[in-house]
Amino acid sequence: MSAPIVAVVGGGQLARMMQESANALGIHLRALVEAADGSSAQVIPDHRVGHPDDDTAMDELVAGADVLTFEHEHIPDAQLARLASRLPIEPKAGALHFAQDKIAMRQRLSAAGIACPEWTTCRTREELTEIGQRWGWPVVVKWARGGYDGHGVAVVTDPADIASWFDDLAEGDALLVEEHVPFTREVAALLARSRSGECVAWPLTQTIQRDGICHVAMAPAPGLDPALAREATDIGYRVAAELDVTGVLAVEMFVVEGDSPRVVVNELAMRPHNSGHWTIEGSLTSQFENHLRAVLDLPLGDTRMVAPAACMVNVLGSARAEPRDAYAAVMAREPGAKIHYYGKGVRPGRKLGHVTMIGDDIADIRRRAEACARAIEADEKGN
Amino acid sequence: MSAPIVAVVGGGQLARMMQESANALGIHLRALVEAADGSSAQVIPDHRVGHPDDDTAMDELVAGADVLTFEHEHIPDAQLARLASRLPIEPKAGALHFAQDKIAMRQRLSAAGIACPEWTTCRTREELTEIGQRWGWPVVVKWARGGYDGHGVAVVTDPADIASWFDDLAEGDALLVEEHVPFTREVAALLARSRSGECVAWPLTQTIQRDGICHVAMAPAPGLDPALAREATDIGYRVAAELDVTGVLAVEMFVVEGDSPRVVVNELAMRPHNSGHWTIEGSLTSQFENHLRAVLDLPLGDTRMVAPAACMVNVLGSARAEPRDAYAAVMAREPGAKIHYYGKGVRPGRKLGHVTMIGDDIADIRRRAEACARAIEADEKGN
Ligand SMILES: Nc1ncnc2c1ncn2[C@@H]1O[C@H](COP(=O)(O)OP(=O)(O)O)[C@@H](O)[C@H]1O
Ligand SMILES: Nc1ncnc2c1ncn2[C@@H]1O[C@H](COP(=O)(O)OP(=O)(O)O)[C@@H](O)[C@H]1O
Ligand SMILES: [Mg+2]
Ligand SMILES: [Mg+2]
Repeated sequence: MSAPIVAVVGGGQLARMMQESANALGIHLRALVEAADGSSAQVIPDHRVGHPDDDTAMDELVAGADVLTFEHEHIPDAQLARLASRLPIEPKAGALHFAQDKIAMRQRLSAAGIACPEWTTCRTREELTEIGQRWGWPVVVKWARGGYDGHGVAVVTDPADIASWFDDLAEGDALLVEEHVPFTREVAALLARSRSGECVAWPLTQTIQRDGICHVAMAPAPGLDPALAREATDIGYRVAAELDVTGVLAVEMFVVEGDSPRVVVNELAMRPHNSGHWTIEGSLTSQFENHLRAVLDLPLGDTRMVAPAACMVNVLGSARAEPRDAYAAVMAREPGAKIHYYGKGVRPGRKLGHVTMIGDDIADIRRRAEACARAIEADEKGN
Repeated sequence: MSAPIVAVVGGGQLARMMQESANALGIHLRALVEAADGSSAQVIPDHRVGHPDDDTAMDELVAGADVLTFEHEHIPDAQLARLASRLPIEPKAGALHFAQDKIAMRQRLSAAGIACPEWTTCRTREELTEIGQRWGWPVVVKWARGGYDGHGVAVVTDPADIASWFDDLAEGDALLVEEHVPFTREVAALLARSRSGECVAWPLTQTIQRDGICHVAMAPAPGLDPALAREATDIGYRVAAELDVTGVLAVEMFVVEGDSPRVVVNELAMRPHNSGHWTIEGSLTSQFENHLRAVLDLPLGDTRMVAPAACMVNVLGSARAEPRDAYAAVMAREPGAKIHYYGKGVRPGRKLGHVTMIGDDIADIRRRAEACARAIEADEKGN
């Protein structure tokens, strides 16, 4: 066989990091990117600029490819349907749908008996007011489609706060309304499932979000009751099999610890996920490698950790300068820090890179990795 | 600072693997390659086809680059001299010389008091006969320049065996003659040294060659007397500093264990080296990352191992089919095996890739990694 060709829709850091694993395995990636100088285009020699709703761009992307996959879920259904007979699309449209549409996801998981926050939908301010009065405020309201990094998620105590959301609702669309879960922590079950149905899970990851954006991921979730961790991982396996997911699946969950502990699913991502970046150094097989293996239907790699603990901290854009300016100071301070840079222009709040540390003591490596990320964001030159 | 640009001469697997580290750090590699579809050209978007003795090709390679480095030592001295005033060349010509010319290396190390095999030079069959009679046969004879993977190395019991070598000797050139060292094992000290003189070493690696080609590398050298391991590593640090090496340095050594143990230097490589491929998974910082950091004068990464033992086995071309055909079977058998594929055409004996395993027990992972490599070479489809 000559190099297998994996067509991937995505010009961002996830496709970029896939390329590192593709290099090692001799897999040919071909990317559809938004801009010729974007994050993944810088490192994937075979890239084309185009949009996934453009038939010609997609036709060229999949020509001769062995499989089509994605780094994000925003692929038009019509496009998936149009290409379905031409080559394997992994994850399949039938699964991807539940990562694209949060209402469909809630319906599907509830039907399968998988625990979710209490949820319903609303189409008008009046409906939302009625729900809030019944449940008690705050409630969490979300766009069904198109949200990411906290955009399209609001903790609502007064429907007036999201008045424009109702105005912008298309005919027939609805908003998702959820109980505001008093979680003690957020975790993500990260799994890879191949086309043949082989499924492996990495140790459960705890994530810490600020303003809806992932800041820190720690594995294994420190100090979590093993029974709850097992329950969360089991939910991950059930979702993967029930929805026939292929590739990497991240099941974001809320954990409520205390007297009546519970685990409920927040949302699904069917692609390598920010909560799994630590696997590059922290596990025998990274999520990027296993995503490629899974969508090519190759046997999956060992997900065991290579250290007792791993911690990843995102580097977000600040108003200040280029992150690379701080490299020397950070490298001098932390020779064990693994710096990842996505080659993206600096914009405040934008994910520009991440820092991973592995070691014995999660509190220690978290503190140190956060210090590295903060130094890069602040462009500290000194020590 | 925008992306630092590292110009690298080399179209092979070493430049290819550098690219994986460059991706992560946001470093821009620009490669001069032998062929547009070669190993590194497949994964380095910014590559140009050309030869290092071509001034125009080299001018284009270094235009705007922050540093020039190499994946092999075969760079004409005139070229290095011509470019020296334009940008940092790392390693510098004054150091690289001792990786290019084995006679110069022997002279330099002997002058510095670093232990080598007993050695001399010869220009004629008669001289060699005289040396052999004095020392006793066999002796080892080597080309001063241009040898690799055992080409240009002969264990000689009769000067007639290498008659053509004398015929081919250019005016003024000589062959290196060495005692045939009764080594009990071969080891490589792998170090990285930055332009500022910061120097770090990985745990000492044992290598096993067959027919002059590296087959297996194991770290740390299993069961080696710690005093000898320390002595070998110390020699590595001395060579790096004494020769003002920048980038990765591999010091290949012979270890003689037993009643009068000793360590002597075999040869030097000033670039990432086959003995260090295990560092990709086995160490916190790979040789490829530290090479880039060293030549850019960034602080160096932690060289600690992430497991008690690491073993790398080369995959050599056989008369049989494409190595990728065996991937599924090998991945199914060894989910923890890390397969690296260089994207090179299959030729018998050619290094096409390697397999690394990390773990607790070196004998166990060696056996398993060798089984993987043999299965890939043999294109075994079954289990
Ligand atoms: N029902 C909820 N109860 C409490 N917090 C929530 C709830 N839903 C979302 N959040 C918070 O908002 C974050 C973003 O919500 P999420 O649905 O994951 O949107 P996104 O698609 O932007 O990641 C979550 O990680 C969590 O911190
Ligand atoms: N003096 C020597 N005594 C014994 N074996 C030697 C000697 N020199 C070289 N060899 C053997 O030949 C191999 C290749 O020699 P080397 O000088 O390293 O050439 P190359 O440049 O091809 O790597 C060594 O790894 C070792 O196994
Ligand atoms: Mg989320
Ligand atoms: Mg050698």
